[in-house]
Amino acid sequence: MGIRTRASLRTIWWENSSVILIDQTKLPTGLEYIKCSNVQRLAKAIVDLEIRGAPAIGIAVAMGLALTASHSHARTIEELSIDISSDAEMLRKTRPTAWNLFWAAGIIQNLTNNFEGTVEELKEIIIERALTLAEEDIFINKTMGTFGASLIEDGDVVGTVCNAGWLATAGEYGTALGAIKVAHEQGKNVSVISLETRPVLQGARLTSWELVQDGIPVKVIVDAAVGYCVSKGMINRFIVGADRIVARDGCYIFNKIGTYTAALAARRHGVPFYVAAPMSTFDFANRLDEVVVEERGEREVAELSNRRLIAEGAKVYNPAFDLTPPDLVDGIITEKGILYPPYPMNLIKLKH
Amino acid sequence: MGIRTRASLRTIWWENSSVILIDQTKLPTGLEYIKCSNVQRLAKAIVDLEIRGAPAIGIAVAMGLALTASHSHARTIEELSIDISSDAEMLRKTRPTAWNLFWAAGIIQNLTNNFEGTVEELKEIIIERALTLAEEDIFINKTMGTFGASLIEDGDVVGTVCNAGWLATAGEYGTALGAIKVAHEQGKNVSVISLETRPVLQGARLTSWELVQDGIPVKVIVDAAVGYCVSKGMINRFIVGADRIVARDGCYIFNKIGTYTAALAARRHGVPFYVAAPMSTFDFANRLDEVVVEERGEREVAELSNRRLIAEGAKVYNPAFDLTPPDLVDGIITEKGILYPPYPMNLIKLKH
Repeated sequence: MGIRTRASLRTIWWENSSVILIDQTKLPTGLEYIKCSNVQRLAKAIVDLEIRGAPAIGIAVAMGLALTASHSHARTIEELSIDISSDAEMLRKTRPTAWNLFWAAGIIQNLTNNFEGTVEELKEIIIERALTLAEEDIFINKTMGTFGASLIEDGDVVGTVCNAGWLATAGEYGTALGAIKVAHEQGKNVSVISLETRPVLQGARLTSWELVQDGIPVKVIVDAAVGYCVSKGMINRFIVGADRIVARDGCYIFNKIGTYTAALAARRHGVPFYVAAPMSTFDFANRLDEVVVEERGEREVAELSNRRLIAEGAKVYNPAFDLTPPDLVDGIITEKGILYPPYPMNLIKLKH
Repeated sequence: MGIRTRASLRTIWWENSSVILIDQTKLPTGLEYIKCSNVQRLAKAIVDLEIRGAPAIGIAVAMGLALTASHSHARTIEELSIDISSDAEMLRKTRPTAWNLFWAAGIIQNLTNNFEGTVEELKEIIIERALTLAEEDIFINKTMGTFGASLIEDGDVVGTVCNAGWLATAGEYGTALGAIKVAHEQGKNVSVISLETRPVLQGARLTSWELVQDGIPVKVIVDAAVGYCVSKGMINRFIVGADRIVARDGCYIFNKIGTYTAALAARRHGVPFYVAAPMSTFDFANRLDEVVVEERGEREVAELSNRRLIAEGAKVYNPAFDLTPPDLVDGIITEKGILYPPYPMNLIKLKH
């Protein structure tokens, strides 16, 4: 593909009727791979955050359904369609907040509707669609990166939350980090302040690892330091990813916990706050109050490496995402261009 | 002492010419004690956070100088005064932000000025003063707790940052948690959401431990979740401690990193935000830009239990404190009453 200007970096790929993915729980100290021979193993990889990031789990769901198709014993289109629907339902329950997961499941399921041809042909089409979704994701992110880079000035220090890099997508660029990488490739002097992103530390573990590999200077701070760093003028702008953007209520941003507090700090000090997300992250179907914010287990907060961090008898509340209202967002970088307020109106223009 | 209504809980005490303190790095999984036979060991305990919390390290500094006096070979008042000054200077450098440390060092040093009497008498006075400072701290905190409890309504969920409990003081009540404990003793139904407070996790480790012991329900959240929890109406008010309140510039609050972001979230959602701190935390001498915000080592953020959390080649920025401006603070709870805005003016009234 002509768009690849950097070494091929993939989080997930298809190999001999299996899905291979990087085990993101082992980074930054180990680069290990997981082979998923069936959709159940792949679903477990999503639940356990071995693969994470909204675009990446969208691709994972598509490839999971490709595994379903590949291994199905269905003798009719209807039977294959039932197998796909059943596993799509199972995959939708792995992580309820990221919209890309629902989007990808819908795309694969739609292929089975009114299909005319043989079971083998449908299987091949499903597998092919899953693989092209991954290629499209990379192309989309590169395009988004180019739009996003136009917002970055020489000398900028960009704040980011969690990991919205190539590890959060099918590969190569990523969403928020894509903008930074393209700016870096353009010769702009850009560096990053990465919030460590407790409890799973994707900012500390993954964003720092990605950027070090790309030769982009990165400093890790605890999440709680974001207000102080912004107040000291250490961050010129923010670019973060998104797990779901609820279009109907004016583009509210569901993203990794801590995004909202970063946005509050940015607004207080007049620092521009941007979101980078492909169109597949926009949820046009649900209203705000219909979105489930995933609450993860207590152990993510209460323990680290089997060391108990909190007192016995204390409870934990562990929401994985928060909600940033559109009034705090200065722009949304998509593959169709940069979306500026007022959002519901300008989104419709951009979409068409 | 008549004020003790709860079991005697002390962080630090004098025993056979040594200072004993709870090793706060071992909590919540182990309750261990450290014996400081000399001021150097005590200084190390402050640097290594074995004892922490602004009021507690104030008391530790006073007791450290009591160790200096106790072990001094000075033959004249002047020689003893030099010993005290030299160790006070050393102790002032252990942690530069908390004002109570400077305050306590000043109180002990002042005893040596124009002293008339024998070396042994001065030694005894210094030791006695250090021990009464600890008793006064407990009395002050109980008084503050009573003022603070008046702000807490039945059913409140109080948000707090770091540990401003008895572990952060000489003992028994604490500052911010003192208000909560007195409210609890008054029969009010009160519970706490404790920010875990990375990187050292004082909220997760210490506040949860203290409150579980007191039978007060506590839920730990990652620091990044504060905005989301406030937006969901889960926190009715905040009470936090302070390491230094710069009076001259209108009562800016230096406190544990993350306080400022919590205050920003509180303000956005109209949740009252209070600071609880004894008068010894008010710095009337320095201006804002004269205060040194301690930056601690990279390892606190980059490692936990010897597990590497960030990529090799990435840097860390680790400020221990942040700065909350007075416009975000609805009241400051002191032992002289609750101070309301406008601060510089009302502080002068309260002081006299």
